[in-house]
Amino acid sequence: MSTSPSPSSSHPLDEALQLAAVAGAPGQYQGQTHPGYWNMVGPFGGVTAASLLQAILLHPDRLGDPLSLTVNYAGALVEGAFTIQAVPVRTNRSTQHWTLSILQADAEGAPVVTTTGTAVTAVRRETWSVGDMPMPEVTPAAALEPIARQGVEWINRYEMRPLKGPIPNTWDGTGDHSTTQLWMRDAPPRPLDFLALTALADVFYPRVWLRRARRVPAGTVSITVYFHARAEQLAATGTGHLLGQARGQEFRNGFFDQTAQLWNEAGAMLATSHQIVYYKE
Amino acid sequence: MSTSPSPSSSHPLDEALQLAAVAGAPGQYQGQTHPGYWNMVGPFGGVTAASLLQAILLHPDRLGDPLSLTVNYAGALVEGAFTIQAVPVRTNRSTQHWTLSILQADAEGAPVVTTTGTAVTAVRRETWSVGDMPMPEVTPAAALEPIARQGVEWINRYEMRPLKGPIPNTWDGTGDHSTTQLWMRDAPPRPLDFLALTALADVFYPRVWLRRARRVPAGTVSITVYFHARAEQLAATGTGHLLGQARGQEFRNGFFDQTAQLWNEAGAMLATSHQIVYYKE
Repeated sequence: MSTSPSPSSSHPLDEALQLAAVAGAPGQYQGQTHPGYWNMVGPFGGVTAASLLQAILLHPDRLGDPLSLTVNYAGALVEGAFTIQAVPVRTNRSTQHWTLSILQADAEGAPVVTTTGTAVTAVRRETWSVGDMPMPEVTPAAALEPIARQGVEWINRYEMRPLKGPIPNTWDGTGDHSTTQLWMRDAPPRPLDFLALTALADVFYPRVWLRRARRVPAGTVSITVYFHARAEQLAATGTGHLLGQARGQEFRNGFFDQTAQLWNEAGAMLATSHQIVYYKE
Repeated sequence: MSTSPSPSSSHPLDEALQLAAVAGAPGQYQGQTHPGYWNMVGPFGGVTAASLLQAILLHPDRLGDPLSLTVNYAGALVEGAFTIQAVPVRTNRSTQHWTLSILQADAEGAPVVTTTGTAVTAVRRETWSVGDMPMPEVTPAAALEPIARQGVEWINRYEMRPLKGPIPNTWDGTGDHSTTQLWMRDAPPRPLDFLALTALADVFYPRVWLRRARRVPAGTVSITVYFHARAEQLAATGTGHLLGQARGQEFRNGFFDQTAQLWNEAGAMLATSHQIVYYKE
């Protein structure tokens, strides 16, 4: 007699984010890279970030929900097993501070740090609230067709409907802005949670490609995600589309920064994000 | 015979950022809180962030200049001595990844983590570059008077010339935006470097005060600074004014985020910054 996996556990994102607690080592978890989220020379960074958050969510001592997450990509993960260490270094009344790292064995079997990070989780209370950056008025997701699947493997795990600033068709150096807007969600659709939201915050292709209309080597060095939504709000968003918006601010001597906002279809800001990205030439 | 301190070492910022290497403990530095940068219940967070960067700059194994810095305020520092630990966890060909922490003894003398962080330093090479967020056209600093010194002690260490969104005069709940623009520099003027720039990125008062025109308890939980300038560009900026711009994006259930940009008078983007801030009520 065989047991079917539940619909949720069979989603590729849930497969990619599966972690096993290491017995006798609090906060230590074993994971495996997933071929479905492979990028050019390592896993999609959004899933790496979500894996670190997963370790926090699995930790028995966790207080509250994600508030902020910073992930630094020190080196590309190679295919195979990795170890996450998540340490709650300080727990206050309503906030908890985490340090994070990913280790992988090198060719000689010695552990090497591939990724570092910090996070804050928090118990949130209802307060005066206001959105001060309204969602742009755009064509609804339902009125647009998703783009054909293409490129590196992880991109196929997302349904994307570009509104502005799609990946250039011709790399002719004519770019004049760095703003992308698109509707996006997991493919196949999966109910939104903090893990999926984290990965979605890193979906945007490198701004330098758009600004220059030139495809140069580029990779995220550090990303920060600020979570503005509660778990119930993510659950209510369900498998709906998110409007993602990203733009660069400064491209200077090998690195640019990017700011991003993610709203649900109801216009609620779920997360904001920033990253600094290496580029060549 | 007495020796006069050099002009630089007598600046309050340099006093506040003085660290002493702990013999036999690589990357460990002892510092002291400085009364000149005192906030309400601890030191000005910008100086705490700059102290962490100082530990990196003093570290004998450092590669390159600051690229990104994330600081998480886990608990207020108390007056007196503190210990910084700066660890270069991974050094690549042109980037280096750091983990950071500040420890202070609690009432029983046991070390407690007050602050965590990560940073990336990098060797930067000349590449194609462009500023994609031009400096707003504003009244030059020289045409404005600095505001009178006021409030908590650290504010007196900065010369500020507000252009837009000054601290409200009346707390009557009539706020309708969260954008502040001001010219700013150290007081007394001090040649700009990465340390001063880091602290300046945190000068902005809590956006929630402006958005609500209501003064509620608020404090930074986590700040990230991305550095876009080289050391030579900071040196060329000298004691000139910086245009700082900050705005909130989402105020939701006890936390808001803030994005900020810092340009020099010549219009060069020197740093961008983001933070997530706790607020009450």
